[in-house]
Amino acid sequence: MHELAERILAHDLRAVARGLRFVDDRTGGHVQLLKDLFPHTGKAHVIGVTGNPGAGKSTLCDRLIEAFRKEGKTVGVLAVDPTSPYSGGAILGDRIRMGRHATDPGVFIRSVATRGHLGGLSQSARDMVRVLDAYGSEVILIETVGVGQDEIEITRTAATTLVVMAPGLGDDVQASKAGILECADVFAVNKADRDGADSTVRDLELMIALGTETMAAAASKSRGHVVHSNVGPGSAAIAAADGAPPPERWTPPILKCVATRGEGIAELVKALAVHRRWVEETEAGRARRELRLAEEVREGLREALIEAAVSALGEKIDAAVRAVGAREVDPYAATERLIEEFRGR
Amino acid sequence: MHELAERILAHDLRAVARGLRFVDDRTGGHVQLLKDLFPHTGKAHVIGVTGNPGAGKSTLCDRLIEAFRKEGKTVGVLAVDPTSPYSGGAILGDRIRMGRHATDPGVFIRSVATRGHLGGLSQSARDMVRVLDAYGSEVILIETVGVGQDEIEITRTAATTLVVMAPGLGDDVQASKAGILECADVFAVNKADRDGADSTVRDLELMIALGTETMAAAASKSRGHVVHSNVGPGSAAIAAADGAPPPERWTPPILKCVATRGEGIAELVKALAVHRRWVEETEAGRARRELRLAEEVREGLREALIEAAVSALGEKIDAAVRAVGAREVDPYAATERLIEEFRGR
Repeated sequence: MHELAERILAHDLRAVARGLRFVDDRTGGHVQLLKDLFPHTGKAHVIGVTGNPGAGKSTLCDRLIEAFRKEGKTVGVLAVDPTSPYSGGAILGDRIRMGRHATDPGVFIRSVATRGHLGGLSQSARDMVRVLDAYGSEVILIETVGVGQDEIEITRTAATTLVVMAPGLGDDVQASKAGILECADVFAVNKADRDGADSTVRDLELMIALGTETMAAAASKSRGHVVHSNVGPGSAAIAAADGAPPPERWTPPILKCVATRGEGIAELVKALAVHRRWVEETEAGRARRELRLAEEVREGLREALIEAAVSALGEKIDAAVRAVGAREVDPYAATERLIEEFRGR
Repeated sequence: MHELAERILAHDLRAVARGLRFVDDRTGGHVQLLKDLFPHTGKAHVIGVTGNPGAGKSTLCDRLIEAFRKEGKTVGVLAVDPTSPYSGGAILGDRIRMGRHATDPGVFIRSVATRGHLGGLSQSARDMVRVLDAYGSEVILIETVGVGQDEIEITRTAATTLVVMAPGLGDDVQASKAGILECADVFAVNKADRDGADSTVRDLELMIALGTETMAAAASKSRGHVVHSNVGPGSAAIAAADGAPPPERWTPPILKCVATRGEGIAELVKALAVHRRWVEETEAGRARRELRLAEEVREGLREALIEAAVSALGEKIDAAVRAVGAREVDPYAATERLIEEFRGR
């Protein structure tokens, strides 16, 4: 076994930091580390937190960390900033890092710089989650900056995706909703003490209702059964779920909260826990988990293939590029020849 | 030769529409079409148009089409909407399609639905550009919806990238600037009759000045040499460039315009033309073109590899997914075995 793996499994703080860096750098040696750690993973509840800038994700994450810590759970946080392929920094992570959890040994926070190449970031995030999982983080939050396609891809590596909205963010919220609906497992309408919170909730309800007829049915059934600050279509199921089995069909609940004052956080934590049970205990949840795993294997295959090809072909790729540049060959034929070479044909 | 290729080269409108669909669907047979068309490509000026929603890209594109048509050039437009992996539609394209150029045989407009998988979209855009190029479009505009990483990737398939800004778009503009700087060849500050236009120009100037010391030097040199509505750092070079050779080092000019009234469009068209000459006639421009070509070969290799592997391995991939799901094997080892199988080892 990788010596680093042993130290990570022994809850060595420096080792996990090194392991994460190792995996994020993707120098090749990280694969053995991940193989060694894999049998010790699968225990953490991985929660993706996404939503528009300005929705208050950082403050909400801070409150969630606090709530999970009160339950005695250790927390790992990956703050991912894929919005700029050039900044090379992860602003959010730094913001959180300076927060009050920085000195708590039960909280491990790491910001993830963008990889600059498409596709690689979600694989990177998935592998870093595994490192934190093996290290022993019981809850792992993956916080993203915005709600673009990259972020949606990243949240697909999580068991539960929390989408944070806030009133008054304007058109951007509308524009991004289409993609958000399919990736959201739980909605939090933060800053719910502001004007427009109810209208944001109604917009989301409508959106969910329009999503599928089944969802619409669930929405109309749950309306009028508002408990605490649980207000959305799936909230009745959440409210009823203290100990009861999770519903077979998941409808994203919409929960109001005011993260700055810590209001609505307990209900949110409960909804996240119920969703985790849905993933683990229902047939639909297990089917989704398998689908995501299949995606991972295919994505991993894609990345590993190009890495293996670059390593096997080396200088031949550069020669092909030169030939295409000189228009001696078209890029399509050049690619085919490289693949034949790679396969030893 | 592919019969469709012959018809596209003979400027058959139906054939180019079919060819674009064929290439966008990526069913496999499109590769032979692209091979046949490749020797007839490389003539068009490919211009990527990106910028925040609300900056007025569609109106500006409409004006650019008008200006190019007045020069007697045929125009192809690809309107790409990668922001939502689920919408399956390209809103922008439809908006343009209904515009006044719809009945002009010298203008071909096609909207591109997102492919739903990362990495594939820029390859798709590049291949569709080749089809339009072979068909005979002299200017090809690739219009994107937003300014995310996907859009930046797509603009890298263009020879010239025009970034459209507008005053008063707020924080999002700030946030996205870091990524925009590196991809912009020309900046248009649209809606320049509005309050805040000068401050947007100053922000951009500052940003460019901060970008590199060389850029800063160019910026301070060009200040005070404002000609027409050309206001930015690189504008002196543009203004001087009627017939003069393009500058060896390119500094993105910042041009004010009011697309709704057609103001500043002529200057913009001139700047785009000067940039094209920079790409084709300077050493730095040629170096960039070669770099982009190398990126294409590597990206194409990545896509073709996974396609070849999926086709060669078939059911074995599903079996690997099941084994990983049952935790009989870790995803990393499963991937390695699949690659060995693919390579016939």
